[in-house]
Amino acid sequence: MRVAVDGMGGDYAPDAIVKGCLSVFEQTDDIEIKLVGRSADLNESVCRVSGRSAEDFAPRLTIVHAEDVVTMNDKPSIALRKKKDNSITRSVRLLADKEVDAVISAGNTAALVGVSSYVIGMIKGAKRPGVAVPLPARGGSCTIIDLGANIACKAQHLYQYGIMASAYSERILGVENPRVGLINIGTEDSKGIDMIVEANKLLKASDLNYVGYVEGHEIFLGGCDVAVCEGFLGNTLLKAIEGFSTNFIHTVIDEIKKMFAGDAERQAAALSNFKKRTDWKDYGGAPLLGLDGVVILAHGKSNDVAVANSIIRADQLAKSGLNEYLLARLA
Amino acid sequence: MRVAVDGMGGDYAPDAIVKGCLSVFEQTDDIEIKLVGRSADLNESVCRVSGRSAEDFAPRLTIVHAEDVVTMNDKPSIALRKKKDNSITRSVRLLADKEVDAVISAGNTAALVGVSSYVIGMIKGAKRPGVAVPLPARGGSCTIIDLGANIACKAQHLYQYGIMASAYSERILGVENPRVGLINIGTEDSKGIDMIVEANKLLKASDLNYVGYVEGHEIFLGGCDVAVCEGFLGNTLLKAIEGFSTNFIHTVIDEIKKMFAGDAERQAAALSNFKKRTDWKDYGGAPLLGLDGVVILAHGKSNDVAVANSIIRADQLAKSGLNEYLLARLA
Repeated sequence: MRVAVDGMGGDYAPDAIVKGCLSVFEQTDDIEIKLVGRSADLNESVCRVSGRSAEDFAPRLTIVHAEDVVTMNDKPSIALRKKKDNSITRSVRLLADKEVDAVISAGNTAALVGVSSYVIGMIKGAKRPGVAVPLPARGGSCTIIDLGANIACKAQHLYQYGIMASAYSERILGVENPRVGLINIGTEDSKGIDMIVEANKLLKASDLNYVGYVEGHEIFLGGCDVAVCEGFLGNTLLKAIEGFSTNFIHTVIDEIKKMFAGDAERQAAALSNFKKRTDWKDYGGAPLLGLDGVVILAHGKSNDVAVANSIIRADQLAKSGLNEYLLARLA
Repeated sequence: MRVAVDGMGGDYAPDAIVKGCLSVFEQTDDIEIKLVGRSADLNESVCRVSGRSAEDFAPRLTIVHAEDVVTMNDKPSIALRKKKDNSITRSVRLLADKEVDAVISAGNTAALVGVSSYVIGMIKGAKRPGVAVPLPARGGSCTIIDLGANIACKAQHLYQYGIMASAYSERILGVENPRVGLINIGTEDSKGIDMIVEANKLLKASDLNYVGYVEGHEIFLGGCDVAVCEGFLGNTLLKAIEGFSTNFIHTVIDEIKKMFAGDAERQAAALSNFKKRTDWKDYGGAPLLGLDGVVILAHGKSNDVAVANSIIRADQLAKSGLNEYLLARLA
């Protein structure tokens, strides 16, 4: 499997990205990486991170030069028109030209969505891309879709998100017959806004394992395996949970320190164990479902573990036949 | 201060409601309560909870009979037209008739909003009611508005929510010159949907301490003291945080148990301390800001402490002159 990795995207680029790539070489045998971005920066980073030169990792690692860098705040139009030779566009073009099987970027979400939609387009029949992420929930995880690819959502998009994320949950995450819920402010049929009421009808008439409306808490309490919502809501919800948990974890760490005051060894053991169990930032990136190719959005704050997990997830997705299945469902 | 308390609303009614009322009598001297609902049920509950009869608490406690009960799923129209003699409507009418200074209900949100809007109306100039709740955040709390009173939101409503919640934060919660943020999916001016972009302009032109767009995580990480959003988003966000924290607290409790395995005493102490620090369900109810009267929505899962806190919050609000201030600002 060949994957293009945007070397310039994300808060800890390029070093965390490079480290993630090198770690994938240790974990797997058959993944080749085209690392895309300013070649001087990337070569230096490889040296800094590994003490070796990029050539030492050939042929599994190739550096592909792209002169421009899209910042986190650039609009998609900047990536498409002004900074034409940027690492995101270059990566996505490698996918369009079938020189790689998947793309990963921890960079600007809007630019990745915009460039991918423009350059590789949608699966036939799919209306809009949707970002899907499994979040830790009682009894396993719940996959939320959309996390912000589409903020001009319609009922038909929500319906398709249900299909896409159900297939993702079943085929990639291994959830049997995933229960699909539609996020609403109440569970009665009449509740909510027109778009939701209409999507509810479409989902009810589908062959999905649709469980109806779910409220926000049910995402985490085992109410469904897939939770469908529009992108503005999903994006804010994901970020809010991140902020809340960061804050909450600090409270707990504070308490643990007090509990073991005077016993440094047990304190350290307890803290490390707790941090391990609550660190859910290492999840393996979020696919942009609906695109006619495998594009993975990694978290902007991705560390090397998250980058490596995203690459491995991309490999899994490219081999899974998910997009072929979605083509048959949506066309 | 005289307050009408809906005795039939909430998951633990009537006993948790009654217990909360009786606890207010112990904590304060000058609050009189009209407890509204099925008088037989409420009399029984007082007896069950206190071992005394309702008359023993006169004149501070009066039971006001209302024959009908609005369920959590009834539409507002049911409360207004079919179950006319219900405890919510009866409570709100007591406020309209100036027989009480405030209303508290842990019952059906939509019914409370609908009935209140219809019976007591808005402060002159205010467009829509908004539910405001302070959530625990780094460095204190952040007040989110709206948590679901209004799901047909416009830019002008968001602008007014900024004014209302800023005044609430300053005058009731004691936050000096509160920093008001508008929830968006990014912080650049061009980001987001039309309603948000327009509200941003209105807030920028206001005399509020407006800090611009904030993303979901900043609610909890100290980015602002007031976070403005539309009700569908706010409602889902609040419920999602509740679900997430319930789930997360279980993980932590599990870890604490393991840490102190074999030391029952320390385990119990650690658990009790942790639960105390993370129990944020006791907050004192959420005001329906913008209404021409003090109406407090208590959480549906309110226990007696939450009910008592809501009553005390209502007392504080009624005495604060907040609505007179909002009248001067919005008219």
